[in-house]
Amino acid sequence: MNAKRRRFAGITLGVLGALALAGACSQPSAAGPGASIGDIAAARGLSEADISAAVKTYVPTGQFDEYMMFASGGHSGQALVIGIPSMRLLKVIGVFTPEPWQGYGYGSEEHAQLMEDGDMAGHEIRWGDSHHPALSETDGDYDGQYLFINDKANPRLAVIDLRDFETKQIVQNPLFGSNHGGAFVTPNTEYVIEPAQYAVPLDGTYAHIDEYEERYRGAVTFWKFDRDAGRLDESESFTIELPPYWQDLSDAGKGPSHGWAFINTFNTEMATGGVMKGNPPFEAGASANDMDYLTLINWEAAARVADEAGKTVQIQGRRVIPLQTAIDEGLIYFTPEPKSPHGVDVTPDGQRLVISGKLDPHATVYEWDRIQTAIADQNFSGTDAYGVPILDFDAVVEKQVELGLGPLHTQYGSNDIAYTSLFLESAVVKWSVSQGVVLEKLPVHYNVGHIAMAEGDTRSPDGNYLVSLNKWSIDRFATVGPLHPQNFQLVDVTGDQMQLLYDSPIGIGEPHYAQIIKADKLAAWETYPQIGFNPATMSPAEDIATTGTERIERRDGEVHVYMTAVRSHFTPEHIEVNQGENVVLHVTNPEQTRDATHGFAIDKYNVNLSLEPGESQVVRFTADAAGVFPFYCTEFCSALHLEMAGYLFVRP
Amino acid sequence: MNAKRRRFAGITLGVLGALALAGACSQPSAAGPGASIGDIAAARGLSEADISAAVKTYVPTGQFDEYMMFASGGHSGQALVIGIPSMRLLKVIGVFTPEPWQGYGYGSEEHAQLMEDGDMAGHEIRWGDSHHPALSETDGDYDGQYLFINDKANPRLAVIDLRDFETKQIVQNPLFGSNHGGAFVTPNTEYVIEPAQYAVPLDGTYAHIDEYEERYRGAVTFWKFDRDAGRLDESESFTIELPPYWQDLSDAGKGPSHGWAFINTFNTEMATGGVMKGNPPFEAGASANDMDYLTLINWEAAARVADEAGKTVQIQGRRVIPLQTAIDEGLIYFTPEPKSPHGVDVTPDGQRLVISGKLDPHATVYEWDRIQTAIADQNFSGTDAYGVPILDFDAVVEKQVELGLGPLHTQYGSNDIAYTSLFLESAVVKWSVSQGVVLEKLPVHYNVGHIAMAEGDTRSPDGNYLVSLNKWSIDRFATVGPLHPQNFQLVDVTGDQMQLLYDSPIGIGEPHYAQIIKADKLAAWETYPQIGFNPATMSPAEDIATTGTERIERRDGEVHVYMTAVRSHFTPEHIEVNQGENVVLHVTNPEQTRDATHGFAIDKYNVNLSLEPGESQVVRFTADAAGVFPFYCTEFCSALHLEMAGYLFVRP
Repeated sequence: MNAKRRRFAGITLGVLGALALAGACSQPSAAGPGASIGDIAAARGLSEADISAAVKTYVPTGQFDEYMMFASGGHSGQALVIGIPSMRLLKVIGVFTPEPWQGYGYGSEEHAQLMEDGDMAGHEIRWGDSHHPALSETDGDYDGQYLFINDKANPRLAVIDLRDFETKQIVQNPLFGSNHGGAFVTPNTEYVIEPAQYAVPLDGTYAHIDEYEERYRGAVTFWKFDRDAGRLDESESFTIELPPYWQDLSDAGKGPSHGWAFINTFNTEMATGGVMKGNPPFEAGASANDMDYLTLINWEAAARVADEAGKTVQIQGRRVIPLQTAIDEGLIYFTPEPKSPHGVDVTPDGQRLVISGKLDPHATVYEWDRIQTAIADQNFSGTDAYGVPILDFDAVVEKQVELGLGPLHTQYGSNDIAYTSLFLESAVVKWSVSQGVVLEKLPVHYNVGHIAMAEGDTRSPDGNYLVSLNKWSIDRFATVGPLHPQNFQLVDVTGDQMQLLYDSPIGIGEPHYAQIIKADKLAAWETYPQIGFNPATMSPAEDIATTGTERIERRDGEVHVYMTAVRSHFTPEHIEVNQGENVVLHVTNPEQTRDATHGFAIDKYNVNLSLEPGESQVVRFTADAAGVFPFYCTEFCSALHLEMAGYLFVRP
Repeated sequence: MNAKRRRFAGITLGVLGALALAGACSQPSAAGPGASIGDIAAARGLSEADISAAVKTYVPTGQFDEYMMFASGGHSGQALVIGIPSMRLLKVIGVFTPEPWQGYGYGSEEHAQLMEDGDMAGHEIRWGDSHHPALSETDGDYDGQYLFINDKANPRLAVIDLRDFETKQIVQNPLFGSNHGGAFVTPNTEYVIEPAQYAVPLDGTYAHIDEYEERYRGAVTFWKFDRDAGRLDESESFTIELPPYWQDLSDAGKGPSHGWAFINTFNTEMATGGVMKGNPPFEAGASANDMDYLTLINWEAAARVADEAGKTVQIQGRRVIPLQTAIDEGLIYFTPEPKSPHGVDVTPDGQRLVISGKLDPHATVYEWDRIQTAIADQNFSGTDAYGVPILDFDAVVEKQVELGLGPLHTQYGSNDIAYTSLFLESAVVKWSVSQGVVLEKLPVHYNVGHIAMAEGDTRSPDGNYLVSLNKWSIDRFATVGPLHPQNFQLVDVTGDQMQLLYDSPIGIGEPHYAQIIKADKLAAWETYPQIGFNPATMSPAEDIATTGTERIERRDGEVHVYMTAVRSHFTPEHIEVNQGENVVLHVTNPEQTRDATHGFAIDKYNVNLSLEPGESQVVRFTADAAGVFPFYCTEFCSALHLEMAGYLFVRP
């Protein structure tokens, strides 16, 4: 009980401090219902630190979070939007996986095309392993306009428009077997960087694994982003062939290192697995060497080379700069880095690169000035087996700082402070890059992969908050079956000591990385800007009905239904067709009120739309099943929502 | 500033109260990092009520919630598991919609069959509109074993096993066009009740809308639950034909009313819509009458009748008791109830039924004793057009209590206290059922549909917490595009006044209803109970590999791959097949450590499994695309997770 007494004394003194600040007074309590704060804390066994954390993370009804975090949804294939410091899950954005609440991939012609664009190897791909979200940047600062995210499993990238928080484009990379190190953007979002992971033949053909060194390759694609169109432009994008090593994370240079991209490269052992053939298992074979490579690529020069005649080859319809050309043109260099690296993170000033070798206890700090000098002086320790020049390690490394076991990924706060996740230690370490000294360690729960900080990838990080993306939750949450949630832990980094504030179970997907943006940088729409708006083109929809012009037309062998959805009815309410007829629904929600969304579901036809105010959607289907099929509004819109229905009659 | 000063005075007094309780002392603050509670509150503009709410809802790292809430995911098709009071989203359970993080519907033979069982009208149905979750009950009390949930859009029910929180069964109802009032269970989970909503011909054929009164019908299905098998047993289930009205919510009698089911019935006007034909729109036509019906069904007697020769007909392979038989056997009665009812809620003691007519400001309270007497005395005011006897309203109604505008749904606390949602008022009203007096109203934000209370549907509700499931959030959260989250609001009902504690955005789906169970009633598994376990049968898996017996066998025109997945490798790592071969993967995770889950994804083949410790899965696919396809672990499992990979080689 003594411990608790001390706690309450602490609280009291804290509040007395506040009184001094606010001016003491002795009026009777204006307390709401229930017991005093102390009583409640006592009843719930909360310490003063708990109360402090509760108050720091509590965002009252109607108040908004200071920051918004965009996290990958891992193999849910989606993106998560989370408020900070409340850690409230504000939205799950459908990206690579169909999601019916958003009407994403359930009948909309727009989404059908989007999904089809992402199909690979002749298969309908209806999920993704979304790894690294990247907010669009202007001058090295998040601008709040777009979000990019990669799919590791089926090498693809998606573009999300942050006006309506919807996925607008999915592009695929047929040259790759998988990717990992994307999406990372250059400082003005000129390009989105997508490196491959597991090596395959770039031409997509079969090659025996014994031909690994000759036929298999790594690669990195620089996707040109057309900001006005809000689309990645395949025709302006290019790929650089790499040796058959595996690419891990990447980052773009900024400030003095602008124009360069940095990619961690492992399995330089070129292990090919095959335990049943007596080979070492992948994890052993790919971890044999003490040093792997940091890959340095001059993307600005590469973009020029890609436009020169004869400098690229076409592989599966994509522009590829052959490795030898990249070497000859001085586009690519390696430098050694310690064992099986994960994160490469450019400091906010662009002067240094911090690399974490996940099987090495150090962070290795490279100086950009030294790298430039080494390149200018051709200070090479040799080349790799494919002829890529290797910069001398000692010439480019400023220092190595012992951080702890299993360093993975580094984020930056303000004033030269870095934070690095330690997977094996289940901790976050705070350290000074310039001084090379460890300042503090905070245990996290458990097995932290990435960490994310407020504006942490920009030229001016805020510090304030750190989120630890933990892979295992173990004993942190009640058991909800053998598949347990991940655990996002929110950490306050404003004080001298880091304070763990909050645990957030992530019971959907396994987020890999997140970025945290100031909420006031976002300018999302509350409704679509006009009645009859097409989210696919982000422009007025054509060939629609608005209130009063609803109708059914038969033409060109199709039944066109021009429909509106308004509280609380669909017009028309009856759709009568013959079995086998092709039906085209043009549905518009003419409402302009925030939240006045209508769903449109056709029973047993696998159709569900989400029609936000102003939105128009087109649905094409064949009425192949005869019978009577109710359709109705799936979004509780009004007191007469249950009456917002109609019938699709299909005559045999 | 005065307001703030008063707040802090309130805090201080509150804490001084705690000191009195804990014994005052004057030791220096043991405060953690950062400012005092008061300073933090001042900086964030928090009132004392805010601080009280923050402390009441804060669950520190490693501590568990007192309750678990199971909410429907609305048209996400899923079920949500949320801790109370923390309001943390612990898990999204894949139910009607494929979900790749859980490996649900992405290659598993088990899930392929599960999904196929739910296909309707010859269409692949890959979503649902999940409405009403129902926890299994024993003697009218939640027993924590199973969760049932309905799909309104494609009339189906799903069964979730709360040992592993996975969906085990999806059954479809071909007689219905849609359902709404399910899932509700009888007090010992003898049956799961599924009433239809929009009327259609029960035989699934086309009928012109002009034949509505003759050919269209409502119905209610009683699904027999086999608790040992954990499955709904279609062969033991039966359906009762109803007039072509629409069924809304239902509830099961308990205690004295055990054996009966109660279903709200609206659109007794038999409106058929057709605005473009000059008919009144559905919402007007279905709201013309001042009174609709409460449907009373004696399910215990009906079950006996269903087993008698000649008392049922077969429609689409299902046992149906014709309406006339139900009338003749005394299985069904109506009684009038006010305008367009939504909720029917049996009191914990089973003595009363509370009905909310959503277009009537009253709650109408029916007494079970009066209903029994009226039935015994045949005290009928007549019959409906289909011959169903109508119990005299005045004979069965105890009282009507004016609650407010748009009453929808009632939940019960302890000691005779009821809470009813008021959609049009955006409020929750607290009232006494026995005294028939309103005690208090609390505004909610906004447009509340259902409410849920701790153990609220059992014979012994806890009170303590109320969750308001609000449909619109409007100004409660930052804008995340035109599709806004719903808003779950947590309310403390322990004090004299209800206190709003917390807003929870639900940015995935639109939950309709939820049930809240004491967390200690659940006994979920941390891992599967033995190595090589089949979640489909919840028993040991057959024909699998464990460590040391991995192999590849060609037989019967199939390539059988017996694989294990262990930190940090797959065995085998190489799968070599010829294009066109049929591949059968038998994959086992032999780990026994909590959280040691492995994913298994094949790039570009739309396959992703989630293999929790002990789990075995089978995947069948045709290697139709030639080339080299990496496979890898999608669940970050170890420091060498990125090296946990292999290759599928498909020779042309």
